[in-house]
Amino acid sequence: MAPFVFIGAGNLATSLALAFFEAGFPIAQIYSRTENSARVLAQRVKAPWTDCIEQILQGDYFYFTALKDSVLEELVPSLVDGREEGFFIHTAGSLPMSLWSQFSSSPSRYGVFYPMQTFSRQKPIPFEDIPIFIEASTPAAVEELMKLGRAISHHVTQTDSERRQKLHLAAVFACNFSNHCYALAEHLLEEAEIPFEVMLPLIDETARKAHLLSPRQGQTGPAIRYDKSVIDRHLTVLASKPQLQEIYRLLSESIHKMALKP
Amino acid sequence: MAPFVFIGAGNLATSLALAFFEAGFPIAQIYSRTENSARVLAQRVKAPWTDCIEQILQGDYFYFTALKDSVLEELVPSLVDGREEGFFIHTAGSLPMSLWSQFSSSPSRYGVFYPMQTFSRQKPIPFEDIPIFIEASTPAAVEELMKLGRAISHHVTQTDSERRQKLHLAAVFACNFSNHCYALAEHLLEEAEIPFEVMLPLIDETARKAHLLSPRQGQTGPAIRYDKSVIDRHLTVLASKPQLQEIYRLLSESIHKMALKP
Repeated sequence: MAPFVFIGAGNLATSLALAFFEAGFPIAQIYSRTENSARVLAQRVKAPWTDCIEQILQGDYFYFTALKDSVLEELVPSLVDGREEGFFIHTAGSLPMSLWSQFSSSPSRYGVFYPMQTFSRQKPIPFEDIPIFIEASTPAAVEELMKLGRAISHHVTQTDSERRQKLHLAAVFACNFSNHCYALAEHLLEEAEIPFEVMLPLIDETARKAHLLSPRQGQTGPAIRYDKSVIDRHLTVLASKPQLQEIYRLLSESIHKMALKP
Repeated sequence: MAPFVFIGAGNLATSLALAFFEAGFPIAQIYSRTENSARVLAQRVKAPWTDCIEQILQGDYFYFTALKDSVLEELVPSLVDGREEGFFIHTAGSLPMSLWSQFSSSPSRYGVFYPMQTFSRQKPIPFEDIPIFIEASTPAAVEELMKLGRAISHHVTQTDSERRQKLHLAAVFACNFSNHCYALAEHLLEEAEIPFEVMLPLIDETARKAHLLSPRQGQTGPAIRYDKSVIDRHLTVLASKPQLQEIYRLLSESIHKMALKP
């Protein structure tokens, strides 16, 4: 098994490197532009680190990249150059696999390893329940990535770039945007000096319900029945916050519109 | 203990009537404009029913109303008239208690009993973990409602109308809007012929994380780091859906703005 080089040391890189480390895979190096992040993650997986691109190891490695998309796109040419022997893997939901194949001397083995989950450094997650979506340059390369995926997760699926992009977009709604709705609730409660914890039973039940009912069927609240008197009262409470008011209005309209569809 | 009359037979009325019924409280009557809803709930709590306002019992009853706010506001005069001996209670998050005290012959005992949760007829919820917010016309009336609340829940708090309205607004964000984000994800996945179940680990983790980290601190995704290349790709995928595009844009801006605040 070729050893792993991690390019990036953020939330996702940290979770992924730890999962492979704990599963017994050899980790050869951690690279991050930020010296401190590189050092912290390297310590946790007992590997050397570098913050200099030129010093990234060359040879038969699995290069796992987990960077902000725009940073990765910029880095790709200098990363691939001189390392064509390696297997290049990105972990981004919405970047196409073709990212790796646009150079005169491209690597022959490359692919995507997209774990669909929300990662925070403060809260490590067991990888085994995380769905992982795989794409790779050749059938043999697919098989290699599927094996790596199955070593850390029970849910590994082969998916092309187009479907992965739709998955990623759906995940932004189901996770990032729903979390932001929690954060906006937190903000409103802070102003009323009410502890956020009071919302947790409601948040838990909303998530639990999605296991039993389609979220569309499980929708509740003033918007679905378009209860204008409640909606108008809420918009009045939000009068001093035009952006929140606009979000309230738009989501309420969208809920009502969805409820009217046959 | 005065028996209960339920005015309404929707999701909330059903959950509440069942909780009191199972806790051994006497239920004297179910009223609903919709004959079938009245009959179904009445059967479950072994009580008579009516769909005619004039036939609602008169006397020393707890009248628990659980109706759409605008319907309740219209109904209040004819409901209270001739029933001033009763204890009138509404269960709405954002209606003030003063709803009950605006008549020449108002009841002397009235209040609010607001269980902050999302109720679906298809998925009954154990009431004991649901926070209930109480307000009533006199200290003795508060004590009566607190007792009723404690009989079915571990979390009963006295709260005035203004704070309750803010709680309700926050609940709309944390529950109704986050559920709609799930529903939009479901819609996008349907188009890509991907089963919604794939989102459940992500939804569960997002909710779980809110127990450990403030949602603002736990925020992840392209918007927080304002990853323009991802955001632009997502907006392109949504090109044929202007309302979804607008929701995506507005929530992403709001996430980014919140992240920039000190």
